[in-house]
Amino acid sequence: MKLEIWFEFASTYSYLTVSRAEAMLRDAQIELVWRPFLLGPIFRDHGMDTSPFVLDPVKGRYMWRDMERRCEKYGLPFKRPGIFPVNGLKAARIMTAALDEPWCGAFARSVFTAQFARAADISNEHVLSVALEGHGVSPEPWLERAQDPETKEALRATTERAQSIGIFGAPSMLVGDELFWGDDRLEDAITFACSECRQ
Amino acid sequence: MKLEIWFEFASTYSYLTVSRAEAMLRDAQIELVWRPFLLGPIFRDHGMDTSPFVLDPVKGRYMWRDMERRCEKYGLPFKRPGIFPVNGLKAARIMTAALDEPWCGAFARSVFTAQFARAADISNEHVLSVALEGHGVSPEPWLERAQDPETKEALRATTERAQSIGIFGAPSMLVGDELFWGDDRLEDAITFACSECRQ
Repeated sequence: MKLEIWFEFASTYSYLTVSRAEAMLRDAQIELVWRPFLLGPIFRDHGMDTSPFVLDPVKGRYMWRDMERRCEKYGLPFKRPGIFPVNGLKAARIMTAALDEPWCGAFARSVFTAQFARAADISNEHVLSVALEGHGVSPEPWLERAQDPETKEALRATTERAQSIGIFGAPSMLVGDELFWGDDRLEDAITFACSECRQ
Repeated sequence: MKLEIWFEFASTYSYLTVSRAEAMLRDAQIELVWRPFLLGPIFRDHGMDTSPFVLDPVKGRYMWRDMERRCEKYGLPFKRPGIFPVNGLKAARIMTAALDEPWCGAFARSVFTAQFARAADISNEHVLSVALEGHGVSPEPWLERAQDPETKEALRATTERAQSIGIFGAPSMLVGDELFWGDDRLEDAITFACSECRQ
């Protein structure tokens, strides 16, 4: 059974899921499929021109406190970045180009950690290069591949597929046709995938 | 230590929390304080004239499926009501008038069960009367008390307090100054309350 993890690099709660998922799915013997996509076009479809946490400051204030608590609960470092939401386009394109590479999950985690544990600006190519180098990957070919027309098209197609299957936020988990939204549904999604396996 | 449960009778996820909380808090030896309030004025403050699940049909569709799954997980019956969101004003006023009564939590559960397990219209006084009678309570005095100026004012004041402490959805849990939003944070709120007790 496969469990798809749909995430956006600018999304706070995606940090939690991307950091937690690989070990949890390995333990559950569920295949993980990464689905990096862009929330921007989806938020626009839902009438929002930026993150709901920016549009609604009361909800935004709550979210940052909730993130602190959840990171503490999961033993993840946390430092609120100065820019939110950051432009995650370059990171998403590199991830899209690298989906067949064994280091792509570790790269995604490093990018999230840079952003939400060290408050680094992940729209900066240098930050992304450091994340690649941290896994022994030479950055230049991947920064180039990120600009390939087929990479851009693949990311666009993934984002359109997200819209077509009713994804409205990140992270979202998909098991077959069953959609789960939010880091707090990761455990449920895994339980569902396991129950599907046994059938 | 006290844990306040802020809920709205029209809120789907409040059904889960109100149904689960009493037993969980008793086991954890945490005092439960019910805080019925109205989401309408709060949604209006946040620029919405009805439930976000109605304003955004994609999110709404997801929510109903999520409710089915969560009810199954918690062993709660579920039947989607024909009217959503229902007007929970009368139920909230009865609950407000009855907060000192030993049966008020059981009454709240019965109203939620009528709405989300039997798809009854809880804006109907007969449905509320049946919920009261089910706990051996004569309905008439409480339907009258619900109309007392002091009851109306108390519910208004609770709703204003919700706004002032940054509540933007239901259910919300409050422990001291620490706010938790959503049924999926009930366990965290209880854990937090327990850790505060030990200090």
